[in-house]
Amino acid sequence: MQKPPKAGKVFLVGAGPGDIELLTLKAARLLASADIVLIDDLAGDEVLALCPQARIIHVGKRGGCKSTPQSFIEKLLVREALAGHAVVRLKGGDVSLFGRASEEIFALEAAGIEFEIVPGVTAGLAAAAELKASLTHRDHAHGVAFITAHGAEGAEIPWQALAQSALTLVVYMGVARVASLQTSLLAGGLRGDTPVIAVERASRADTRNVCSTVAAMVNDFAEQQLKSPAVLVIGEAMAERARTLAETAQLATAVTRVA
Amino acid sequence: MQKPPKAGKVFLVGAGPGDIELLTLKAARLLASADIVLIDDLAGDEVLALCPQARIIHVGKRGGCKSTPQSFIEKLLVREALAGHAVVRLKGGDVSLFGRASEEIFALEAAGIEFEIVPGVTAGLAAAAELKASLTHRDHAHGVAFITAHGAEGAEIPWQALAQSALTLVVYMGVARVASLQTSLLAGGLRGDTPVIAVERASRADTRNVCSTVAAMVNDFAEQQLKSPAVLVIGEAMAERARTLAETAQLATAVTRVA
Repeated sequence: MQKPPKAGKVFLVGAGPGDIELLTLKAARLLASADIVLIDDLAGDEVLALCPQARIIHVGKRGGCKSTPQSFIEKLLVREALAGHAVVRLKGGDVSLFGRASEEIFALEAAGIEFEIVPGVTAGLAAAAELKASLTHRDHAHGVAFITAHGAEGAEIPWQALAQSALTLVVYMGVARVASLQTSLLAGGLRGDTPVIAVERASRADTRNVCSTVAAMVNDFAEQQLKSPAVLVIGEAMAERARTLAETAQLATAVTRVA
Repeated sequence: MQKPPKAGKVFLVGAGPGDIELLTLKAARLLASADIVLIDDLAGDEVLALCPQARIIHVGKRGGCKSTPQSFIEKLLVREALAGHAVVRLKGGDVSLFGRASEEIFALEAAGIEFEIVPGVTAGLAAAAELKASLTHRDHAHGVAFITAHGAEGAEIPWQALAQSALTLVVYMGVARVASLQTSLLAGGLRGDTPVIAVERASRADTRNVCSTVAAMVNDFAEQQLKSPAVLVIGEAMAERARTLAETAQLATAVTRVA
């Protein structure tokens, strides 16, 4: 077997929440010099313009849909790096949150491949920016929890501890499981009137949000036909923001009626 | 008073964790077209090269040191926007986490100023990238909590709930308060042998990390002279990573001895 002159390297890169402008400068630089780019559904096709020189491999994975097996992705990363290529594995949002990065890291380390992680803007922070809200407040909400309702059937999520943590809860991949999420949060002791704001497609041009409460969210999200990808921001820190959004919406409706 | 022809606007922009390349494309674009840039200590001086046309105002604020009063910053944002300027308020990390953004948002809304939030890469995610670790794992650590040990003396942080949450805990501004943090975590029921990895200056060239445990961290951090800014990553999700880092360090020491 002929060995290529240069050593390959893998970059696990966070693509940010969707708006191409929320890529980091580093992500853009690495894309522009990559030999191979493995791309997520969540990362979006706009990034392709940033790496016209690269061979693109789509490795779609979206909750519930048919997807590229994780083991195939891992083998591909190792194979292409061993062939001497600079490989960018672009993941929606950030790499270290809910991205199954630990499996890819394990595979790369086991194969002795040089690799680097480039962090990105995670969807929960993009949602807060979209809402013009702080997730924390020095007087209340001293922190935030990023959790997922996806794939949690088997895991023992301590909902009671979460409900009592006084953290703002940001739930990823929660739309499809909103009914079981509601049951868990109420059983954990969270008040039914705790504010919930869902942000669909945060940072994208067609983003929208739905204000609700833990008690009402199942109905409200169904009525508003809320779709993935969306994050749910739950907690008292959202109370004021929900009021402001409701007032703005009422005003917009009133203006429309007058016009 | 003569009114300027254009309306001002304020951009609250996350500068990312320190590495200038972890700015977003949007942050870089806004910096390049800003009239005024208000800059944090944490954001660093390297960004100045990205906005040579702008008037720079330093509004340093670092835990424990003399700093620009928050109310002054808010007045400045409002005044400059009313004067018709494009104002970038650059904040270290992300805007919506621990940045006192809610106070600035409130001031801007009260004054009727148009504003936008641009999210950034937060230090906790940069720390995970530095450690080549995932903060979550589909089998354990189904989520992560970003919390602060700073300014929490008055607040009632439910440490017990946090300890029982099974979340990976990422503690910001915890170095100066590591002794009280340790007391709180142990009192909350976290095991003394729970892994803790401190990451100093994540994403910067001179970053380093210190592996410890909840029981040993006060001594270990003092011995290693750990300094702010640093984040502490706490939880079983870090166990494997701590082992890998220890092995690498032993290997490096062995190699140095042989050489």
